[in-house]
Amino acid sequence: MGKKIGVVLSGCGVYDGSEIHEAVLTLLEIDKNGAEAICMAPDMELAEVDHLTGQPTGAKRNVLVESARIARGKITDIAKVTAADLDAIIFPGGFGAAKNLCDFAFKGAGASVQPEVARLLKEMIAAKKPVGAICIAPALIAATLGKEFAPEVTIGTDEGTAAAINATGSSHVNCPVKEFIIDKKNKIVSTPAYMLAGSIGEAAAGIEKCVKAVIELI
Amino acid sequence: MGKKIGVVLSGCGVYDGSEIHEAVLTLLEIDKNGAEAICMAPDMELAEVDHLTGQPTGAKRNVLVESARIARGKITDIAKVTAADLDAIIFPGGFGAAKNLCDFAFKGAGASVQPEVARLLKEMIAAKKPVGAICIAPALIAATLGKEFAPEVTIGTDEGTAAAINATGSSHVNCPVKEFIIDKKNKIVSTPAYMLAGSIGEAAAGIEKCVKAVIELI
Repeated sequence: MGKKIGVVLSGCGVYDGSEIHEAVLTLLEIDKNGAEAICMAPDMELAEVDHLTGQPTGAKRNVLVESARIARGKITDIAKVTAADLDAIIFPGGFGAAKNLCDFAFKGAGASVQPEVARLLKEMIAAKKPVGAICIAPALIAATLGKEFAPEVTIGTDEGTAAAINATGSSHVNCPVKEFIIDKKNKIVSTPAYMLAGSIGEAAAGIEKCVKAVIELI
Repeated sequence: MGKKIGVVLSGCGVYDGSEIHEAVLTLLEIDKNGAEAICMAPDMELAEVDHLTGQPTGAKRNVLVESARIARGKITDIAKVTAADLDAIIFPGGFGAAKNLCDFAFKGAGASVQPEVARLLKEMIAAKKPVGAICIAPALIAATLGKEFAPEVTIGTDEGTAAAINATGSSHVNCPVKEFIIDKKNKIVSTPAYMLAGSIGEAAAGIEKCVKAVIELI
């Protein structure tokens, strides 16, 4: 049986959900490493953004239903998943990770985390199962675990975001786009992806290494 | 300057738009081959499908606006693109290719093709520029070009779809999921992807070869 890797989605599209390239590249690398992706998302509303104009539309969509587009319908409500179901968990980026899974995009270090996301992430840490975080998702890890576990993460080199991560009690480490960092104590792997990437190939290079490192930590 | 490869999207999600994995894997392989993806889609309505239940919702979305999610906002109305702007063109699959770009999913061999899609595809063939078609998109190629150019394409092994393709005046050739076929006369490359794939890795193997073959035909 392949290892089961949870992939936590946050909608479908960089401006109001999961960054689609990062999510798909994560699924690809999980498959290439002989593991099985278990897609999940919270059953909650998101504020729709028109991806042609970049502007909010005022309409709502559902995070779980939109995430199902990336998962080709094979997705579970995160409220039904426990750490016992998974060998590792990975959070792709996109604004959804910082606007839906938590509100770091609005509140920085004082962010609240969606309760089921926080529960499952803390269960994974308690079970010493590895966690991957891509792009802005390390800010979600920091907001959830900062005070208690002081995780070490990267979102690339953005100083403002790094300062907000440090203010949670976490430590930000600068990292180039095609690389990743490992917090060995907490088994947390992170890579900048589209926080720095100028092309899908650059994002893919870091995600490939990040997913492989997560699976090797199992 | 890298070669410019048009990528024609049809929405965002396998049941009412572009198959997201196929679209992203196409963008990845274009980048890996040192070429530039030019994303485009028609400005038209689609009938929304809930990807969690697989059922139509009765609501409409816009094909260009939804496709912008896959393109991270960098997308053009296909009506503004001519063959002179491109070195090659690729059509990822998903029901959008057979429900939005044409109505093959409803009418089979008697399908009508969205006018700007038909115009640009015929311009590319007239200019002897290569065309790639993934998953169900070869049915769109057949519906557009069947009578005049008798293209040779594959959608894998599905007998009903193959018969409908043959009824357009095109020729269907069976093909395994990790392979592709080339119609050398028309410079059309096709691969089955999720018409047969049981995993994203299987789809990726065929798409990788298909995109490379399209670029080599330039």
